[in-house]
Amino acid sequence: MEKRSIPKATLGRVPVYLRYVRGLPDEIDSTISATKIARGVFLGEVQVRKDLALISGRGKPRVGYERDKLICDLENCLGSEKMTNAILVGAGKLGRALLDYDGFEEFGVKIVAGFDCNDSILQTGKSKSILPIKEIEAYCAVNDIKIGIITVGQGSAQEVCDRLVACGVKAIWNFAPCTLRVPPNVLLKHEELALSLAHLNSKI
Amino acid sequence: MEKRSIPKATLGRVPVYLRYVRGLPDEIDSTISATKIARGVFLGEVQVRKDLALISGRGKPRVGYERDKLICDLENCLGSEKMTNAILVGAGKLGRALLDYDGFEEFGVKIVAGFDCNDSILQTGKSKSILPIKEIEAYCAVNDIKIGIITVGQGSAQEVCDRLVACGVKAIWNFAPCTLRVPPNVLLKHEELALSLAHLNSKI
Repeated sequence: MEKRSIPKATLGRVPVYLRYVRGLPDEIDSTISATKIARGVFLGEVQVRKDLALISGRGKPRVGYERDKLICDLENCLGSEKMTNAILVGAGKLGRALLDYDGFEEFGVKIVAGFDCNDSILQTGKSKSILPIKEIEAYCAVNDIKIGIITVGQGSAQEVCDRLVACGVKAIWNFAPCTLRVPPNVLLKHEELALSLAHLNSKI
Repeated sequence: MEKRSIPKATLGRVPVYLRYVRGLPDEIDSTISATKIARGVFLGEVQVRKDLALISGRGKPRVGYERDKLICDLENCLGSEKMTNAILVGAGKLGRALLDYDGFEEFGVKIVAGFDCNDSILQTGKSKSILPIKEIEAYCAVNDIKIGIITVGQGSAQEVCDRLVACGVKAIWNFAPCTLRVPPNVLLKHEELALSLAHLNSKI
């Protein structure tokens, strides 16, 4: 399916709209206006109108958007209508926090398992398994894993990355504080939480 | 102190440069060329030259940069030459992961304590205390807290945010998946990890 080109800034507001519209009480009224959405999410009306026009067309004059169709279009925009499987390597505190967080599924990604080289933190039978790293190739061979999440330390991040790429993942989400090399056909997103905080700090 | 205006994209690469230059072995040679840095961090030479010129001037022809001065300028650029105190509210898995992560100090921010309303997870005496939320005002009154980090659930995030603002923080780093309102003199950075992943997923 061809992806429409939605500006990143707009895409950034989609979860906000989606959460608001999904969270509205089931009223008799099945439509909602851009004005009401703008007020509900504390954003400017012009911006909201522009964003929604890109994502779901113009809405009906004086009525607004059909709620169900709008939710569907917003989900579509985030790719959350199809579920993508992800695995995570490195089940330290951050790794386990991400593994236990169920908010990703709302946006179309399911972290199906974690892997770690430390046998003492392995778990099975719980909702999310933490498996030994040596099983990663076998696991990926039988499950359709598209995304690999790296939450190991800097020292082993490239090795883990290479292994995930060899397992056939299409995208890497890296939390290790280092630069990784991936082949051109693999997407790489580096999540530098320290940098976010440093950036905020630089503006105080 | 007036902050120089460094583009955000450049600022995003500063930690990468800083980590590389700091990590170089202590050789006899106290200078380093932009070419060598570019190779070391897997970035284009033109981009590295541009970035470093903004941050530390042009360097000496055929020699490059004095390492110590470059480190100093890079640190200065991130604001990490002065340490800013932050507190965190919500000591769940993500909260504790952030609390335990010591990589923020490298970039000028120290998370000095965590707060939680759940008495069973409080801890003192360890390197980072987790204190009862009712003590937050007293704590902020005697410590110089500039940044508040919110890792509570959506339901109590605004209340926690208001409390942090009342305690005098200058910036809020929000991990709760909801929109927060802050007064105009308080900076707000919303960290939507689920969105990062959704964005990566939308490009696969």
